[in-house]
Amino acid sequence: YIVTKMGDDWIFLVLLGLTMALVSWSMDYASAKSLQAYKWMHGELKGNVPLQYLAWVTYPMILVMFASLFCHLVSPQAIGSGIPELKTILRGVVLKEYLTLKAFVAKVVGLTAGLGSGMPVGKEVNKPPFHLFTICFFLYLSPSIDPNHYGYTDILTVGCAVGVGCCFGTPLGGVLFSIEVTSTYFAVRNYWRGYFAATFSAFIFRVLSVWNKDAVTITALFKTNFRMDFPFDLQELPAFAIIGISCGFLGAFFVYLNRQVVLFMRRPTALTRFLTKHRLIYPGAVTLIISTLTFPPGFGQFMAGELMPRECINSLFDNFTWTKISASSAPPGLGRSSAWLHPHVSVFVILLLFCIMKFWMSAVSTTMPIPSGAFMPVFILGAAFGRLIGEIMATLFPNGILFDGIVYRILPGGYAVIGAAAMTGAVTHTVSTAVICFELTGQISHILPMMVAVILANMVAQGLQPSLYDSIIQVKK
Amino acid sequence: YIVTKMGDDWIFLVLLGLTMALVSWSMDYASAKSLQAYKWMHGELKGNVPLQYLAWVTYPMILVMFASLFCHLVSPQAIGSGIPELKTILRGVVLKEYLTLKAFVAKVVGLTAGLGSGMPVGKEVNKPPFHLFTICFFLYLSPSIDPNHYGYTDILTVGCAVGVGCCFGTPLGGVLFSIEVTSTYFAVRNYWRGYFAATFSAFIFRVLSVWNKDAVTITALFKTNFRMDFPFDLQELPAFAIIGISCGFLGAFFVYLNRQVVLFMRRPTALTRFLTKHRLIYPGAVTLIISTLTFPPGFGQFMAGELMPRECINSLFDNFTWTKISASSAPPGLGRSSAWLHPHVSVFVILLLFCIMKFWMSAVSTTMPIPSGAFMPVFILGAAFGRLIGEIMATLFPNGILFDGIVYRILPGGYAVIGAAAMTGAVTHTVSTAVICFELTGQISHILPMMVAVILANMVAQGLQPSLYDSIIQVKK
Repeated sequence: YIVTKMGDDWIFLVLLGLTMALVSWSMDYASAKSLQAYKWMHGELKGNVPLQYLAWVTYPMILVMFASLFCHLVSPQAIGSGIPELKTILRGVVLKEYLTLKAFVAKVVGLTAGLGSGMPVGKEVNKPPFHLFTICFFLYLSPSIDPNHYGYTDILTVGCAVGVGCCFGTPLGGVLFSIEVTSTYFAVRNYWRGYFAATFSAFIFRVLSVWNKDAVTITALFKTNFRMDFPFDLQELPAFAIIGISCGFLGAFFVYLNRQVVLFMRRPTALTRFLTKHRLIYPGAVTLIISTLTFPPGFGQFMAGELMPRECINSLFDNFTWTKISASSAPPGLGRSSAWLHPHVSVFVILLLFCIMKFWMSAVSTTMPIPSGAFMPVFILGAAFGRLIGEIMATLFPNGILFDGIVYRILPGGYAVIGAAAMTGAVTHTVSTAVICFELTGQISHILPMMVAVILANMVAQGLQPSLYDSIIQVKK
Repeated sequence: YIVTKMGDDWIFLVLLGLTMALVSWSMDYASAKSLQAYKWMHGELKGNVPLQYLAWVTYPMILVMFASLFCHLVSPQAIGSGIPELKTILRGVVLKEYLTLKAFVAKVVGLTAGLGSGMPVGKEVNKPPFHLFTICFFLYLSPSIDPNHYGYTDILTVGCAVGVGCCFGTPLGGVLFSIEVTSTYFAVRNYWRGYFAATFSAFIFRVLSVWNKDAVTITALFKTNFRMDFPFDLQELPAFAIIGISCGFLGAFFVYLNRQVVLFMRRPTALTRFLTKHRLIYPGAVTLIISTLTFPPGFGQFMAGELMPRECINSLFDNFTWTKISASSAPPGLGRSSAWLHPHVSVFVILLLFCIMKFWMSAVSTTMPIPSGAFMPVFILGAAFGRLIGEIMATLFPNGILFDGIVYRILPGGYAVIGAAAMTGAVTHTVSTAVICFELTGQISHILPMMVAVILANMVAQGLQPSLYDSIIQVKK
């Protein structure tokens, strides 16, 4: 059946997957190099604090302002997350000049610059790439498709799935996430198509990094290494439930805060009139404030400011119990996680500060007029919150939990993974973030507590606020 | 939003999950005890081969014939897999006396007896429980539901999801599988409902086994223990692709064979007229032949006949390379896998014989007039086939694959997992079998090759034959 039916689809889906993987990989590569240059500059200037500060602040400012200017000049439609617009289009509203080549170029360039600045704007699993992939896909390939065969919405839905899936190499989670976020009713044949294209795309994406010697073979991106024989005890479940419920409240508050910032910027006051006139001042000022606060020799030392988003996740998911080690006697293999250990300040204070600071930073910086998603910042936020709870648990039960005569230590890293899934689930009102988490970490041992936490977070958040994307749609109306 | 909207749903979904978990767990428990008694009887009679044979053959015959008789007397509608019927109902056809209490009781009793006989009929992740859960759910709870709120099909779809999900504790895979198998268009709100109820159900199901001291904590059912740092090399991908394509052909052939057997039994010849008159002779004869062939001291020694389905899967997924160990010097921890090692016969021959014999046995025994699904037998078949390819690869590359100066050994167990997913995917025409496999094994490290294999298997099988369920629908028309 499907081979004949799929004949032309097949080539089309492969091409789609290939294009997306290449674009996604190039963006990743460019922004990673940019971050590397940023860190190198910071490292080289060590000792000269004023100059170091200047470099730390100027670099992201230039990139963010460039992204903002570029988008403004080329295509203002590229600004923002992309998912709300896509959802609107899928509902049948025609948004003018939205699916154009210009918007696509603006997305790619603006996003790469934004990601390369190290600001808390969406990284890989965010919506912009997924949106831009949809655009690109629509642009280049739609003339070759039989319009009776593919509906317009079908194309967009499959495009979404591939976009999210290939961003992080999470084909399954990508397909499910895009279904949950964009659709109300869903055709199973699109599920199949999305699955096929997303797998192909994720595969190419990961093979590229193997060829580039970034990775030895295809494994998970943020691979965790928890013990498998006894990942958690049933007695830890209340703590997981607390993470879920708290993340629900925090997620709803994040959506609320984000909307308030946007609404404030829309109110016709002297300040906002001034900012609308000089478009570069708002992103510039936000970047200045955020990078000043994260400056590692300054306040940044109390919130692990030197860590770039990706390092942040890797260190939050690590296998150590930070309350049990000190900065002076760091065990081998600690790596970047040492940024969380301050010689004079407790780990709890640092994690709490990180959560509070990143919370408003993420909510504010996603309102900057550049292409940016909120998925990744929220993911980090959730991971830090989960880690905080995990470290508290590890302090409350310093000897672990006794079961059947064997003592099992508590794994704070597992709490971080669950927190990340619950928080992103609460903000986006989806449950498939759990699947994305499994695919990202390469471990499925925490599946049940994670799903319980995600569902609890969703129940709370859905009762309090619309999802971030619906909130943006409402505001933009 | 949802909390108010879900208010009454919420209690309903929890009740649904709870009921299903309890029923599923009781069935599991009863059939496990039955298998234990079977094995104990076989072990006790060691030395007395004729008596041993009599016990080996009689026990399943009694159970299967009892199941057949019970279903015939109570509710003939309970016979078969359940998914085809459900699919028909979801398409709007009214099947009389199908969703009744009688059918439910017949399903539960017949299925427990069938599973306890050790025949290759569907075990846990099969469709009958999922169907019977749907029935039970519909029966007891439908009067309390606002009919305007829930559509008839909505109830059935959510019921399916929970049924599959709680059978093995695979909530994610269960929801996706039931969507793929039963629906064409799908409402995302049902996805959410299914996810919620399935998680709750799976959770209760697993907690029950912890309380019963079967398990220490909640972990995967068929937990594998492959190395995570380097699960496979890119150079192994062609082998995975071959597994996928071969499984596609084998799956299509399985569907064909199954249909031919059913059609043969329908043709009005003297033999079939005789069998219709004496209903117990057909299942009795099939059971007699199959159990004679698997008799461990006889021919069964060449096809690991002593292994019960669950042990089969566990041993096929193990972490040893069977071609490198011999029966005489078995390493510690080999456990049940020693059944695959014969002192005089090569592992390849045993695996090949197992595949061939189980292939027709499964195709035939799923046509017996008892409640039975094909998922589990096909799953085992695929695992054995994957293992065969894996062992061949391990022999072709005895020193493993060289990469970056480090030599990595080939893991035949990983091939078995991929084969199982690909084969079940080919027979049922679904891709979510990959998700079920991750949840069953608790390891997600093989995600990309598995998805590639499942997609290839689907492409081949969908081109050759309808899915097993569609085939049954066509035949029964």
